[in-house]
Amino acid sequence: MSILAQSIADSVKNSSWIRKMFEAGAQLKEQFGAENVYDFSLGNPDLPAPSCVGDALRELATKAGTPFAFGYMPNAGYPWARQALAKHLTQEQGIALQAEHVLLTCGAAGGLNAVFRALLNHGDQVVTLAPYFVEYSSYVANHGAVLHAVPSQTDTFAPDINALSAAITPKTRILLLNSPNNPTGVIYSKAQLEEIATLLRNKSQEYGRPIFLIADEPYRFLAFDGATVPSLLPLYSHAICVSSFSKNLSLPGVRLGYIAITPNMPEQEELMAGLTLANRILGYVNAPVIGQHIMMHALGSQVDLSIYAARRKAMARVLDESGYEYQMPAGAFYFFPKAPGGDDIAFVQKLQQERILAVPGTGFGCPGHFRLAFCVDEDVIIRSQESFSKARA
Amino acid sequence: MSILAQSIADSVKNSSWIRKMFEAGAQLKEQFGAENVYDFSLGNPDLPAPSCVGDALRELATKAGTPFAFGYMPNAGYPWARQALAKHLTQEQGIALQAEHVLLTCGAAGGLNAVFRALLNHGDQVVTLAPYFVEYSSYVANHGAVLHAVPSQTDTFAPDINALSAAITPKTRILLLNSPNNPTGVIYSKAQLEEIATLLRNKSQEYGRPIFLIADEPYRFLAFDGATVPSLLPLYSHAICVSSFSKNLSLPGVRLGYIAITPNMPEQEELMAGLTLANRILGYVNAPVIGQHIMMHALGSQVDLSIYAARRKAMARVLDESGYEYQMPAGAFYFFPKAPGGDDIAFVQKLQQERILAVPGTGFGCPGHFRLAFCVDEDVIIRSQESFSKARA
Repeated sequence: MSILAQSIADSVKNSSWIRKMFEAGAQLKEQFGAENVYDFSLGNPDLPAPSCVGDALRELATKAGTPFAFGYMPNAGYPWARQALAKHLTQEQGIALQAEHVLLTCGAAGGLNAVFRALLNHGDQVVTLAPYFVEYSSYVANHGAVLHAVPSQTDTFAPDINALSAAITPKTRILLLNSPNNPTGVIYSKAQLEEIATLLRNKSQEYGRPIFLIADEPYRFLAFDGATVPSLLPLYSHAICVSSFSKNLSLPGVRLGYIAITPNMPEQEELMAGLTLANRILGYVNAPVIGQHIMMHALGSQVDLSIYAARRKAMARVLDESGYEYQMPAGAFYFFPKAPGGDDIAFVQKLQQERILAVPGTGFGCPGHFRLAFCVDEDVIIRSQESFSKARA
Repeated sequence: MSILAQSIADSVKNSSWIRKMFEAGAQLKEQFGAENVYDFSLGNPDLPAPSCVGDALRELATKAGTPFAFGYMPNAGYPWARQALAKHLTQEQGIALQAEHVLLTCGAAGGLNAVFRALLNHGDQVVTLAPYFVEYSSYVANHGAVLHAVPSQTDTFAPDINALSAAITPKTRILLLNSPNNPTGVIYSKAQLEEIATLLRNKSQEYGRPIFLIADEPYRFLAFDGATVPSLLPLYSHAICVSSFSKNLSLPGVRLGYIAITPNMPEQEELMAGLTLANRILGYVNAPVIGQHIMMHALGSQVDLSIYAARRKAMARVLDESGYEYQMPAGAFYFFPKAPGGDDIAFVQKLQQERILAVPGTGFGCPGHFRLAFCVDEDVIIRSQESFSKARA
């Protein structure tokens, strides 16, 4: 019998194939040299953080000797930080937010866990669209609830409204959306979101309690060819946006994210009290204080998007010329091509033989595809072409 | 019906008296001026962080433009940070620790939650000694388990071994100790800890699986009059130490803590895999990256302890001269005197009328006492004497 909690013991066991895959990748790098391995496996942004991040650290250093410079503050974050963020999000989300509508968190992952802790009872259900970010099922299971992933439409990865409607039951407390999507790069249109909001309004009325709609959107900043990412907050009375500065400022290790709730929510005070309590008792206590200072310097800044745009085109060329089928990502920094032959795990192993590291779609609840993260140097993308062609042959 | 999860709705409701107390305190400060209110309610360290913290920020600022400077790293922390911490703890805990025995966390609160997530199944039991840090019951409830607080011996607050023995059942997975203790300031002796370890060895054998012993020790650095804090790691095969740099470096808002497990544990690899996974999926992902850099500069440094020592003596004089009964704290920065009249909530309100803010023992599972945090200026302590005398009258 394991000494671990059953669900943790199971997860450790089930994730052993991912570990093995990473170990195989590390071995390849050792054998052939890191520069000869094309590593598209990780969503760890490689662009340097904007210069305002260093400025923030230098300024904070001048105050480091002041009492309480790194002290506790209210669990929702410094009032000045919440106010500045609310002002920023008012522009971004197109709806007037006040400080009391936002809460600073330990990254988007901490934000999602706080929302789930605040809302979910044991046995509740969270619905999401497949493919989906692999950690969602763990975040939901942390709080004794169950994730139900509804397949998106084949090829386009658009929401399948009929399938969604059939999946929602009286146990459903939350619908979780991720747009721009990891791993597909799809951005849901305003019409699609309105259709989803209507569905949830009807289901909420039918079951006599609100179903919450959560937008997980750390890739909002990264939409290509002039695409826009519609906001959910103005569209639905029980919408919650969770996001972070991990990707747009290239600082995922800092752990700074936030939750924003729509000011149209009748129970907004109750929800914010619950979220603040959850943020505290889950042990985040408060979003890291230094991250809050960085945010004040960096609101409105971001990494150079033209670099990601060029990489996206380069990766598309590589895939075109090697004959892969894929949908051009509208946002985020991932491609999600079809696995030639259909078996994504087998094909990812074939890619490894050609010194390409990728992640099988099975890990995202969508077998038959594989994910390529293009937060790597453009030169690596270009040089990978021959290997992609060989693997395809 | 609340929109919140039942346990969160209950907690929000139950904590309303604490909020009211804090609001009353804030009102007092507005009415009489902050300098005329004696606020002993919060454990928010007021001493400035050591100068090495500012140095760390300045040095990090020079690297802020490097790719991955704030990127993801392994979920247990940077290998160099784990190694340095293991070396430091080897000295402190008196047992040889390697990097693979330590894991960096989002504060001690994040560390405790990661341990509980990794070890507890729904319905399991965690035993602790009362009085205890008020958040423990929430941390345990987060993971579907139940906290059972066993009263300590009256007056001395020493562990009551017979009561402890009676409280441990086949459902008990963890015994959680906090020494130096918040709120009592008690430090458990080596003999007491050995007695507890023997009890757990016997119970583990009886029930056929290990009961874990967790030492929560953020106040280890603060022991007065030459007192020492014995380590649990060498004493018991299933001991885990959880701590943070919040108090000794005065940076609780940074959220940097750690878990250290004894190298004597047969299942150490399995446990560390489970803790690392729990750290990831609870949404901490990794201990804040900037905190890890600060730690490298600050290991071995701490705030000026002589200031806390002087305050402790000043507070003892104030309580002596106003006729309060208390046990002199051996460590940490709290006094836990008896509430004159016996009703701690009523007496804390009486203190408020004299412009003194304190926390009732009821909040720590120990009615009849109240807690005074002496992380405030010595002058405030001295000036509070008259108010303490009036409240006593």
